[in-house]
Amino acid sequence: MPDVGLQSELAKTADEERRRASSDAVAAREDRILDIIEKTRAKRPKFRDDHITMAHGAGGKATAALIEGLLVPAFASPALDVLGDAGIVTIDGVGLAMTTDSFVVKPIRFPGGSIGDLAVNGTANDIAMAGARPLALTLSLILEEGLPADVLKAEVDAIAKAAEVAGVTIIAGDTKVVERGACDQMYICTTGIGQVDARATLAPSGLKPGDKILLSGRIGEHGTAIMLARGEFELGAVVESDTRALWPAVDMLLHATGPALRCLRDATRGGVASVLNELARASGVAMLVRENAVPVLPAVMGAAELLGIDPMHVANEGVFVAIVDPGSATAALDAVRTVPGCEDAVEIGEVKTSPTGMVLVETSFGGKRVMDQLVGDPLPRIC
Amino acid sequence: MPDVGLQSELAKTADEERRRASSDAVAAREDRILDIIEKTRAKRPKFRDDHITMAHGAGGKATAALIEGLLVPAFASPALDVLGDAGIVTIDGVGLAMTTDSFVVKPIRFPGGSIGDLAVNGTANDIAMAGARPLALTLSLILEEGLPADVLKAEVDAIAKAAEVAGVTIIAGDTKVVERGACDQMYICTTGIGQVDARATLAPSGLKPGDKILLSGRIGEHGTAIMLARGEFELGAVVESDTRALWPAVDMLLHATGPALRCLRDATRGGVASVLNELARASGVAMLVRENAVPVLPAVMGAAELLGIDPMHVANEGVFVAIVDPGSATAALDAVRTVPGCEDAVEIGEVKTSPTGMVLVETSFGGKRVMDQLVGDPLPRIC
Repeated sequence: MPDVGLQSELAKTADEERRRASSDAVAAREDRILDIIEKTRAKRPKFRDDHITMAHGAGGKATAALIEGLLVPAFASPALDVLGDAGIVTIDGVGLAMTTDSFVVKPIRFPGGSIGDLAVNGTANDIAMAGARPLALTLSLILEEGLPADVLKAEVDAIAKAAEVAGVTIIAGDTKVVERGACDQMYICTTGIGQVDARATLAPSGLKPGDKILLSGRIGEHGTAIMLARGEFELGAVVESDTRALWPAVDMLLHATGPALRCLRDATRGGVASVLNELARASGVAMLVRENAVPVLPAVMGAAELLGIDPMHVANEGVFVAIVDPGSATAALDAVRTVPGCEDAVEIGEVKTSPTGMVLVETSFGGKRVMDQLVGDPLPRIC
Repeated sequence: MPDVGLQSELAKTADEERRRASSDAVAAREDRILDIIEKTRAKRPKFRDDHITMAHGAGGKATAALIEGLLVPAFASPALDVLGDAGIVTIDGVGLAMTTDSFVVKPIRFPGGSIGDLAVNGTANDIAMAGARPLALTLSLILEEGLPADVLKAEVDAIAKAAEVAGVTIIAGDTKVVERGACDQMYICTTGIGQVDARATLAPSGLKPGDKILLSGRIGEHGTAIMLARGEFELGAVVESDTRALWPAVDMLLHATGPALRCLRDATRGGVASVLNELARASGVAMLVRENAVPVLPAVMGAAELLGIDPMHVANEGVFVAIVDPGSATAALDAVRTVPGCEDAVEIGEVKTSPTGMVLVETSFGGKRVMDQLVGDPLPRIC
């Protein structure tokens, strides 16, 4: 009997050694690859496709190429160049954050929410991510001819309720109707405005090595809920969307950290991986994330494995990434955790010097891998 | 030969008498009908349909029922209650106008413009109609999978050019892609923001009997251009869309009239008829329009006759209605006519006491008819 224990111990040690040797070799190879990628990465992505594909809407590499390669250069505005979740404009001395989002989620109702909730929370959250208190929304509906009035009424109610919870007023609207088959039930475009909070001095391109990477909660639940609602695969568990208003958490965070808060991004399309990649590129820094620090529900992990994707690429609608000065990380987490929905807030890694513009994940085995932006569109129309 | 002349004169006189008698009878009948309609009209329209139809997007009666019967009560905000082209919100003492519009025009390119021009001008003009200088836009694209990149690039160029001409900056954007067949090439949602001009004291619900109704130019060209571009009927003439930025004309108007300018509305979906009906209802006044004072191109008139519709119901994208104090009407027209595209600005009628909430048209024969809001959707997807 003890022999078995000993054999087991020996096996473990050998296993560990193999892992270490393998991870050394992997690390050396990775270093060479990273060096090449890093050099390529510094350039602005180009939009070279002949046609629009689903990937252009997925929030990953193709989306970045479309936005940075075509749209931003065409409109050449300082607000756009920052590539934040919202544009900042100063009118008569008042700093305003504005953002817009179209919602084309399918199906329009799913566990934990609906297109109406998303349209309010998604846009209000992008305002909050600019360090601004969301104040007002505009609402534009594109409706498909034949849409049952009850379906529309349910979404109108969802919008009204979500707006009340988020503390925003709907101040203007528009309605268009297109023929049967020219849209999928309904699309909603919301645009938000908020006043930049005096405590916020966010600079998404000013991250410093040593800064801590915080996550406000568990990841991957929204995208998983949508895939399950489509019935495309079976999973003996219900996963609910995490759609929620994030300003209360941002408010607490600003109170706790003030200028020590470097930046905020909500991890929607393309997931946490895309947000971290965009920030790393914008600041010319690297990010190191400890994989086992990232909170993920077992059901979400299971669904991701079934689909062959990384939960870090799955969309969230109520989770944000905050980068803070290391001295304020504990205070920041304590503050955020007091807000309902953010009890699992956690530090997941830190900002590094190199490889510039890249995100590395330290796996449970101590190895490192590159966590790139989403490629293609494995989860279409999740928002 | 002189006899022919005399007979002709006599015939004319008899004709005139018949017209007068007939118009007296018509007038008496009209009075009774008007009385009934007036009583019905005072109530807020109800949204009672089971399904969404194309008419709900046409800018006429069904749209009003959807907006006033469902959306405005659900979102209960003072800005929405005004039912203006834009909502007004005050942030830190600065008065801001915000408006949003989705564009689903078909085809996306047509003589005189494209969906990109419309998306900029349409939204910037709604800001101008609130007496505010348009400053910034957000841009949200819904693209159909498979859309040729060149088609997208052409619209991105059109948006950039129109924004430059209109003097607005694009400060935030969003892109979504839906599967082939889930949208028709591309839809664009723009949201605009502007600062309310200090000279503007607009009150769309404060019209007074005696106020003059001004029109900034010829009507019906945009809607006609779209119908011709679809090839749905033949007309040996090219009609171009009137899509243009209206702030320069509003700027001149405010300079010339100041507080004598009661209100502005651009006559897009549902045409001049819908705008006047909405204003009459909002202020509890009547409107009297002289039909032969309204400038219409012969080709537009011909197209309207072919389609069996009134040019007053046809959409414009560069024409507005201004209601001014009678003492300032001449100065207002002189000012507006100096602006390119507004050379045909003209006074078309005046505000009356009764029948409350209604618009009457004085025909070329001296008779009167009710000019109601558009019913149904004879010209779908024109913006």
